[in-house]
Amino acid sequence: MERRGTLLVLSGPSGSGKGTILKEYTDKHGEVYVSVSATTRDPREGERYGVSYYYMTDEEFKAKIEEGGFLEYAYFCDHYYGTPRKQVEERLAEGVDVVLEIDVQGAFSVRENCPEAVLVFTAPPSYEVLKERLINRGTESRDVIKKRLAMAVEEMKEAHKYDYIIINDEIEAAAKQLESVFAAEKCKADNNEDFINEFLEGVHDNDVIS
Amino acid sequence: MERRGTLLVLSGPSGSGKGTILKEYTDKHGEVYVSVSATTRDPREGERYGVSYYYMTDEEFKAKIEEGGFLEYAYFCDHYYGTPRKQVEERLAEGVDVVLEIDVQGAFSVRENCPEAVLVFTAPPSYEVLKERLINRGTESRDVIKKRLAMAVEEMKEAHKYDYIIINDEIEAAAKQLESVFAAEKCKADNNEDFINEFLEGVHDNDVIS
Repeated sequence: MERRGTLLVLSGPSGSGKGTILKEYTDKHGEVYVSVSATTRDPREGERYGVSYYYMTDEEFKAKIEEGGFLEYAYFCDHYYGTPRKQVEERLAEGVDVVLEIDVQGAFSVRENCPEAVLVFTAPPSYEVLKERLINRGTESRDVIKKRLAMAVEEMKEAHKYDYIIINDEIEAAAKQLESVFAAEKCKADNNEDFINEFLEGVHDNDVIS
Repeated sequence: MERRGTLLVLSGPSGSGKGTILKEYTDKHGEVYVSVSATTRDPREGERYGVSYYYMTDEEFKAKIEEGGFLEYAYFCDHYYGTPRKQVEERLAEGVDVVLEIDVQGAFSVRENCPEAVLVFTAPPSYEVLKERLINRGTESRDVIKKRLAMAVEEMKEAHKYDYIIINDEIEAAAKQLESVFAAEKCKADNNEDFINEFLEGVHDNDVIS
């Protein structure tokens, strides 16, 4: 019985620890495929094609939009960003689990395109903690922090539309929750219809018991 | 933030290993409350009041039905069996997780009475394996085994109505799946509305950042 992989979308405010949770998870689960986005912006120093992003020209990106080649895409700060559909579909068909680390609008687009997608929102434990985390990074100006906080609040207002919320109080516990979500999703009755059918097809005359 | 416990219903055919999975789980999670059923049948040797069952007279049982004192109940082989509502409700309110090990019909009754209940079905990996397990027990007659197999098939036909299916190939893996279901359920967005509201209530003027 070949099973499709699970498509899991991970979103969450800056400072919610989304990336760290995912890293903790993938360190333990090397078999999962973390989707690489496409973009029309230029590579920055240290970035690599196919690892950081797939870099494209505007024309290439637009053509790919036309042919339905993105699971979701967005345009901001003069550049396109999107999730290439083909790689994701291929992995899922092979039974590989796929994670998309994308923003809230992207998550809802993916849900429209792939209703079976599992939407997971990572949340900081409280507004106070989020503020502390952003301040303690020490890398951003007061204005940037204020913007990130305001954006976090807007994102938190969308969190109830997700399937799951992981409250990131402590990173190991949060990664374990992500693991549980994957495991539980595979147990969902809807994802085991083939198993039930195969079981029932295997039923034969009881008289063979001797 | 006081959270309600999770109400989890566990059903599955004889030979699916339901009881063994639950024991493996409760050995590790002593905090979970496994509901004790009430019955009007007589105690058997070695059974204890409040551990094996709560023993009741027919009159007591019927009075309790009248007052809505059961989450589910059934009558078979001349006796009543039921899940007392009070103990379950109290534990859930205290934030304790509760497991009901009951049959398929009971599971659907509980779902009607408590729509938040999580229904988990334990399944043998195949009909062949189930047959082997029942035969290898060596304790039952051929007729009893045939009856159990026929009943298992009927129960498997209802499995798709459950929320989750745990395929019991290997006991430790199956118990771990039960653990994942509990953990994932606690992450469900629907079960975290209070958290989101508290987060948003904690938002205040960003000007305090200095």
